[in-house]
Amino acid sequence: MPILNKDMTLCISLAARPSNIGTRFHNYLYDQLGLNYVYKAFAPADLAQAIAGVRGLPIRGAAVSMPYKEEVIALVDRMDPSAKAIDSVNTIVNDDGVLTAYNTDYLAIARLLRDHRVPATHSVLLRGSGGMAKAVAAALRDAGFTRVTIAARNEAAGRALADLYGFAWQGDPGTSTADLLINVTPLGMSGRYEDAQSFSDDAVAAAKTVFDVVALPSETPLIKAARAAGTPVITGAEVIAIQAEEQFVLYTGVRPTPEQVREASEFSRA
Amino acid sequence: MPILNKDMTLCISLAARPSNIGTRFHNYLYDQLGLNYVYKAFAPADLAQAIAGVRGLPIRGAAVSMPYKEEVIALVDRMDPSAKAIDSVNTIVNDDGVLTAYNTDYLAIARLLRDHRVPATHSVLLRGSGGMAKAVAAALRDAGFTRVTIAARNEAAGRALADLYGFAWQGDPGTSTADLLINVTPLGMSGRYEDAQSFSDDAVAAAKTVFDVVALPSETPLIKAARAAGTPVITGAEVIAIQAEEQFVLYTGVRPTPEQVREASEFSRA
Repeated sequence: MPILNKDMTLCISLAARPSNIGTRFHNYLYDQLGLNYVYKAFAPADLAQAIAGVRGLPIRGAAVSMPYKEEVIALVDRMDPSAKAIDSVNTIVNDDGVLTAYNTDYLAIARLLRDHRVPATHSVLLRGSGGMAKAVAAALRDAGFTRVTIAARNEAAGRALADLYGFAWQGDPGTSTADLLINVTPLGMSGRYEDAQSFSDDAVAAAKTVFDVVALPSETPLIKAARAAGTPVITGAEVIAIQAEEQFVLYTGVRPTPEQVREASEFSRA
Repeated sequence: MPILNKDMTLCISLAARPSNIGTRFHNYLYDQLGLNYVYKAFAPADLAQAIAGVRGLPIRGAAVSMPYKEEVIALVDRMDPSAKAIDSVNTIVNDDGVLTAYNTDYLAIARLLRDHRVPATHSVLLRGSGGMAKAVAAALRDAGFTRVTIAARNEAAGRALADLYGFAWQGDPGTSTADLLINVTPLGMSGRYEDAQSFSDDAVAAAKTVFDVVALPSETPLIKAARAAGTPVITGAEVIAIQAEEQFVLYTGVRPTPEQVREASEFSRA
């Protein structure tokens, strides 16, 4: 039996190809915490009209995914520093018609570097040059990391990203080593690249922390190799859970316990 | 545990003061019929932006209530004859971005006159001159009724309505009689008019059918008096259920059985 009632607050996601993860994560926590909220995923027919609907219906919050993270900037009223730092939005909060844009991927990466106590003195090899690589690079820069190399086959994109944050650039990582390895490419993601390991076994063995933002699956060849080598890991499942937790807090004003976040994350991926 | 998933089709209502009736009616039937739909009520912050959201998100259907039934006409693409007949919209259907407006109150009244086999030769006394009175008058005219008198204290509104459909006008009904009595005023509705009986006992005794569109409660003083006098009745609960059934069919393409409509109606009012 559906549980909806007229007073429920709606939060949504906007993505060309929605997944069930956000829907399950948020609805699970609304239920656990007794919040009169409901979450629904949308594949918008028209982004500007969808954002008009956020204002007009009204809708409290909207997660923004590919390919709308940049296009939506022109449609909001205010950019939080987390979104401004990388010119990319993944979360919109509607306060009485005023839309503020955030990027909780940036917030999640910044928080994971803190929570896992990764020293800013570490050397870093960051593989990738897309939107999420930008969020990681900005979080590294803002956390005080300076010894960062962007490893990306696409030289134009790689150099542009490196220059933006004062980092170095190289091509494919090959056998390069660093204290912190971060994969922000699709290597290891389910599909055509699922068997690809984004850094060499030697690099994994030499690293102090291995961080893979790939979340589906989060046990990528890179993470498996790191676990096998006894190297501490940060997984894409943590990124997704924490960015969703930060969205949840922005929408509801309520911070779930770490245990509740863990349960919701497991439920969302089941 | 919430049952939402990413593939659910959303239908909504737009009203300044939403009730739970539509939410419960539609969600009950979605559940019973195994349709992957969900229904949510909204009190819009801005009607034009809300309708933009219907197009943009997209949303499959929207019920439109007070005070938006006329204002929304400028925002849709097509007017079905049911809405055009009374220049009033209570239902919008979104077919791949093309919004068609209907009035299922008109459709429900037309269907109730047929289902209850009320002859078009009956004399009719219609009390009221608002938007719903217009829907009733149009349905009477289109069903071939000609001996119709609009009884309304507001002479300007009453005469205008009567002239629109070629009917007569009088002031308050007093002790006037007719074969078919129809109340379309708030008399008998819960609140300040709940004890008021909209037609006299003599009129009720002389009538062949008594029709009250008041739905909350549907057992108004008028309906109670008619039942006591053994006069056949048509109630506001039937209007609400049938107009909602017609909305349901427009949104989903599925017609529930009369038994399912009866159950959903009871559930919606519980």
